[in-house]
Amino acid sequence: MTLFCRHTSASLLIHENAAPAAQRDTEAFFARLAPEGADYEHDDEGPDDMPAHLRTALTATQLSIPVMNGRLILGTWQGIFLFEHRAGPHVREIALHLVGE
Amino acid sequence: MTLFCRHTSASLLIHENAAPAAQRDTEAFFARLAPEGADYEHDDEGPDDMPAHLRTALTATQLSIPVMNGRLILGTWQGIFLFEHRAGPHVREIALHLVGE
Amino acid sequence: MTLFCRHTSASLLIHENAAPAAQRDTEAFFARLAPEGADYEHDDEGPDDMPAHLRTALTATQLSIPVMNGRLILGTWQGIFLFEHRAGPHVREIALHLVGE
Repeated sequence: MTLFCRHTSASLLIHENAAPAAQRDTEAFFARLAPEGADYEHDDEGPDDMPAHLRTALTATQLSIPVMNGRLILGTWQGIFLFEHRAGPHVREIALHLVGE
Repeated sequence: MTLFCRHTSASLLIHENAAPAAQRDTEAFFARLAPEGADYEHDDEGPDDMPAHLRTALTATQLSIPVMNGRLILGTWQGIFLFEHRAGPHVREIALHLVGE
Repeated sequence: MTLFCRHTSASLLIHENAAPAAQRDTEAFFARLAPEGADYEHDDEGPDDMPAHLRTALTATQLSIPVMNGRLILGTWQGIFLFEHRAGPHVREIALHLVGE
């Protein structure tokens, strides 16, 4: 099954699914790694615009996950997340494509 | 459709397609994140060799993009880029594999 | 052929396959980029727990590589690596899914 995120300021992430603290650490890490206010040339949509593109480039726009016996073969701790990189809420579209019998 | 970049010093990137400034910011960001001159052990092909491997590791070597009605289902602002990480120009090979009917 | 890593603290990497020094530089780079001891909230499994999730998020959990004439179409210098992000050794599971005739 292929998931494809149709955006340049949100991405897909397979991440630890059990510990909310891990999710908060990951959000904080990417906020430090590609911060707002770093003197970007591009800021058409505000200070969170360019950091969102960078965090998207550093993570995944697409994931293909094998299916076995009708289920994704995710590992025990893996969850699939939509990673929103803009400061405010946005409606996002993810395309799902299932290939096989 | 699967795109596969057959190199370890160039990668594939889905990125904002409308604003050239966003592309320049992204190039500058990766140049800061994995800079030349950071005392790498590996420099067989010069100071831009190891940073190119690192920037490749941080982005995508492969992208699979669903096709619907004969068209890639890219979002409005998404463009597919070959991200060259070496300082000089190189000829690059991208394999395309289309699966389906 | 799709490879899928069933973990959140190890990942897949296509990387320079000929120079061990390049592999050491890449390990050192990710150790600096997402270091231990950076005051993470999540440390259920020790100080190497959260850095491992971050390094996984920055690299690939899944790779799809086209096959031609019975062989992966890897480039000359490309090797496929399992990138272990925890400090100690772990048993890891990679799912392989081959689609086609």
